[in-house]
Amino acid sequence: MITKIDHLGIAVQDLDETVKYYENALGLHCHGREEVASQKVRTAFFEAGDVHIELLEPTAPDSPIAKFLEKSGEGIHHIAFHTDDIGGQLAKASEAGVRLIHEVPFEGAANKLVAFLHPKSTHGVLTEFCQEK
Amino acid sequence: MITKIDHLGIAVQDLDETVKYYENALGLHCHGREEVASQKVRTAFFEAGDVHIELLEPTAPDSPIAKFLEKSGEGIHHIAFHTDDIGGQLAKASEAGVRLIHEVPFEGAANKLVAFLHPKSTHGVLTEFCQEK
Repeated sequence: MITKIDHLGIAVQDLDETVKYYENALGLHCHGREEVASQKVRTAFFEAGDVHIELLEPTAPDSPIAKFLEKSGEGIHHIAFHTDDIGGQLAKASEAGVRLIHEVPFEGAANKLVAFLHPKSTHGVLTEFCQEK
Repeated sequence: MITKIDHLGIAVQDLDETVKYYENALGLHCHGREEVASQKVRTAFFEAGDVHIELLEPTAPDSPIAKFLEKSGEGIHHIAFHTDDIGGQLAKASEAGVRLIHEVPFEGAANKLVAFLHPKSTHGVLTEFCQEK
């Protein structure tokens, strides 16, 4: 079952500039930064209620976020739903005809199991499921 | 202060088809539908934790959502932050150099005061503030 939205991933050109915007214009507090080498991104985290906002800046031209920026410009890149049963959630989506990017969950950031659905079969929204390990 | 994400607005081509996707593939429950004549959209609502997901289908070619779909295709259209002081929030954004679409909040759906920030000055994310009346 989906219990909540875990986080929103937002693609940005310049992490430092965008952190300033979230802090100064929205009044949100940046509570962490991280470089994720496997995804070739630098990230900064904010919280709005119990939803994390994750800003994503590419660190290399072949980063998935660099490709997204090139095609679509800055904006919301993905939505991650928190689930208590990622295997069942993937099976349910697959049965409903959704194309899975990952058939099997893998270990993402923050000690979570994660998997993505393809935006071509989710009405345009790159969708992630995640579950605590 | 921003207290949480109130809702995400998602632009879709076919509301009925997309409602089926959210119900069957994600297992979320559609808890309401509404036609908003002023915005020329039909909407359907879901909940994920305390965040509403609002699907938006245009009802006319000159609907803002029709224009969005034409330019960008289906996907996340806006993010709405819940605030306890929409006037102060707009003033703060304006002082930080953000271009406001609405200088003065207006009455939106569900008895809320709402106002939007321009995506050209919010790093690509059409951003709404909303507050209970």
